[in-house]
Amino acid sequence: MLDSCRLSPLKWLAEEYHDLNGTQYDVLEESPTPLEFSRLVRVGRPVLIKESAIPEADDAAKWTKQWIANNMGDRQISVAVTPNGRADAVTRGPDNMLYFAEPFTQKMTMASFLETLSSGGQATESARSGEVHYLQSQNGNMFSATYFDMSGNEDPSEFEPLREYVPSEIPWCSDALDKSPDAVNLWIGDEKSITSIHSDPYENIYSVIRGAKHFTLLPPTEGWCLQVPNLTEPQPSAKTERRYPHATYNRSSASSELELVPSPSDTPLVRWSSVADPTAPGALPPEAHPIHITVKAGETLYLPAGWWHYVRQEGFTVAVNYWYDMEGRGMSWVWLNFLRGTEEPSLGNEEEPESGTAAVGLK
Amino acid sequence: MLDSCRLSPLKWLAEEYHDLNGTQYDVLEESPTPLEFSRLVRVGRPVLIKESAIPEADDAAKWTKQWIANNMGDRQISVAVTPNGRADAVTRGPDNMLYFAEPFTQKMTMASFLETLSSGGQATESARSGEVHYLQSQNGNMFSATYFDMSGNEDPSEFEPLREYVPSEIPWCSDALDKSPDAVNLWIGDEKSITSIHSDPYENIYSVIRGAKHFTLLPPTEGWCLQVPNLTEPQPSAKTERRYPHATYNRSSASSELELVPSPSDTPLVRWSSVADPTAPGALPPEAHPIHITVKAGETLYLPAGWWHYVRQEGFTVAVNYWYDMEGRGMSWVWLNFLRGTEEPSLGNEEEPESGTAAVGLK
Repeated sequence: MLDSCRLSPLKWLAEEYHDLNGTQYDVLEESPTPLEFSRLVRVGRPVLIKESAIPEADDAAKWTKQWIANNMGDRQISVAVTPNGRADAVTRGPDNMLYFAEPFTQKMTMASFLETLSSGGQATESARSGEVHYLQSQNGNMFSATYFDMSGNEDPSEFEPLREYVPSEIPWCSDALDKSPDAVNLWIGDEKSITSIHSDPYENIYSVIRGAKHFTLLPPTEGWCLQVPNLTEPQPSAKTERRYPHATYNRSSASSELELVPSPSDTPLVRWSSVADPTAPGALPPEAHPIHITVKAGETLYLPAGWWHYVRQEGFTVAVNYWYDMEGRGMSWVWLNFLRGTEEPSLGNEEEPESGTAAVGLK
Repeated sequence: MLDSCRLSPLKWLAEEYHDLNGTQYDVLEESPTPLEFSRLVRVGRPVLIKESAIPEADDAAKWTKQWIANNMGDRQISVAVTPNGRADAVTRGPDNMLYFAEPFTQKMTMASFLETLSSGGQATESARSGEVHYLQSQNGNMFSATYFDMSGNEDPSEFEPLREYVPSEIPWCSDALDKSPDAVNLWIGDEKSITSIHSDPYENIYSVIRGAKHFTLLPPTEGWCLQVPNLTEPQPSAKTERRYPHATYNRSSASSELELVPSPSDTPLVRWSSVADPTAPGALPPEAHPIHITVKAGETLYLPAGWWHYVRQEGFTVAVNYWYDMEGRGMSWVWLNFLRGTEEPSLGNEEEPESGTAAVGLK
C-alpha cells in the first residue's frame, strides 16, 4: 500500500497532468514526417494515425487466414495457450492463491492455430476444450535487435515467409528516434484473448492489419491508480504489495488439460497490476482518466513509453508492433521510475519484472 | 523549509537523474538540423554549439563598440543600472532586510552606455561613481512575440538599426519546435554584471558575439539545492520561505546616487534563490552537481527549459538570446512545477514571479 507521503506527490502529478492535457489525443490522417514524429514523442501523448505502417495491408487478398496459412506452410510456430485468454496476467490458481500466470507455449502449424480463432470454420480439439490461443510471442518474432545488429543473417524468424510483407522498421519512427527497433512482433488472435494492463519502457508503434484493437490507456501519472486494491475481489495478502508468485500453464501430456504450475519458490515475485479489467465499473479510483482508442485495420497507434494499456481485440485480429527503446538520457527514464515507485531503477534490469519494466518477455 | 516528506522524492529524483546523466553535455561542431535539434530538446540537456546563430558575427569589423555606437546613433536606449552589478537579485537594503532588487532603468545613448563598460576608454560620470550598467532589458528588445504576430510592423525596437544584423529567429530551432520565438534579446555588458541563479520556462538559445559568458548550470532536478539556507550568510526570517519583498533602485535626482526603494507593501513577494553565488565554496549542498560551460564569441548554447543558470561575463560581452515557449502539452510543464515546488502551476501566470516562472520581465 502507498503511504500518504508517497501518494501525495503522485496524486498531485496526476491531477496537474490531467488538468493540462485532458483525455485528448491527436489523430493524423497520414503518417508523420520524422520531424513531426519527433515532436510528438516529445509531447508523449498517444496518437492515432489513419494509415498503416504495413504496405499493402489494405489489399483484401492479403492477410486473410488462407493467405497467411498458405504462406507459412507446415512450419511449426509458437502459440500461447491459456484456459481463459489471459496470458501474462494475475490469475487464481487451484490452491486459490493469486499468481502471475504465463501461458503454455504450444508448437503447431499456422493453419492449425488459425482454425482455433473465431470466424475460422472448424474448431480444433484444443479449441473445443475451451482453450484460448494467441500468437503473442513478442520476443521480436518478426525481427529482433539481432536482426539489425547482424544485418539479418543471424536472426531466424518463425515467420520468415511473412518477412517480405512486413517492413523491418518504420522509416519515420527510426529517423525520428535515430535508432532501429528493438523488436518487431506479429500478433494474431481474437476477442477471446485479453492483454492485462501494464506499461513498457518502449516507444510503441502498433499497426493493425485485420480486425481491430480496443486500447484502454492511462498516462504514466495515473499508474498509482492501479495500485489501489480492487474492492470487487477478495483481498489476499499478496495483493497489498502487488507482488505475485510466478506460475506457468502446462499440461502433463499432449492430450491433457492445462494446469497452472507454480514456479520454484526461489523464482522472483512478479509485480503486476491487481486491476483485472480497468473498464469494469468501479475498477479504477475517480482520479483515473482512462482514454479509449480503437485502432482499426489500416490504422496505427503511437503508444508512448510508460503509458498503461489494456487491450481487447475484435474478431480475427492481425497486428504488428514496433518497440523502440525509449530515450535513456535526460529525465524520461527517471520520471517513469518515480511514477512506478521503483526504488532502484536500472535500465534493462530484468531480474524482477515489474509491471512496466524492460522485461520484454512479459510484454 | 522543505519538510522530509517533500524533500525525500526531490533528493531521490536528483540522485537518479545524476546517476543516469552525470555532468556530461554534448558539443556540436556546427548547428544541428531541425530533426537533430528536436531530439536534443527531447533529451533536455545543455548543448554547446561551436557556431554562431548570428551571421557575420565573426566579421571583426562588426560588433565593435565603435560599430555598434555608430549604427545606433543618438537614439535613447534603456539600460539597467545598479550599484553592484546585481540586477534582479536578492540584495540587502539600507534597513538590513533582504529584497529582490530590480535595477534602475536609465535612458542614454548607446555610445554613453558603451563607455561605461570595461576596456572602453573614458569612463563616464556614472561609471566613475561605481555604478554598473548592463543592457539586459530582456523584454524582446530585438524582436518580441508581437513582431511575429504582426509581421514586424507593430513591434518597434530600441535597437532597430541592429535588426538587419540579427535574425529574428533561428531556422533550425523554429522548425524543430514548430513555433517562432517568444522574445529575442540583445545583451551587452561586462564582467561587472552578474546574473543571479534562476530558471526560465523557455527553451533558450544563447549566441555570444563578443567576449564570453560563463554559465554555471544545475538541472531542474537540483533546484531544491537552492532552497537550502546558505550557511555562510546570516539567516533572516524571510529566507526560510525564500520569498523576498520587492524593491527597485531609483535616484531622487539625475545626479544623485542610487537607492533601493521598497515597493508598496501590497506588491507580491518574489520567490528567488537565496544562493548568491553558486560557485562559492560551500554555497551548494553536496547533492548539487553544477556544470560549468563557457560560451565564447561565435558559439551558441542550448539551455533547456527549467535549467538553473548563473551567468558571468568576461570583459566586453555582446550576446543575443532566443526564448521559445516550452512545450505546454505532455509532462514537461508539470514536472518543472513539481520540481520547483509550485503549488498551483498555471502557464503564463505572472502575478507572483517565481524563481523560474514565466515572468519574462524578471529574466
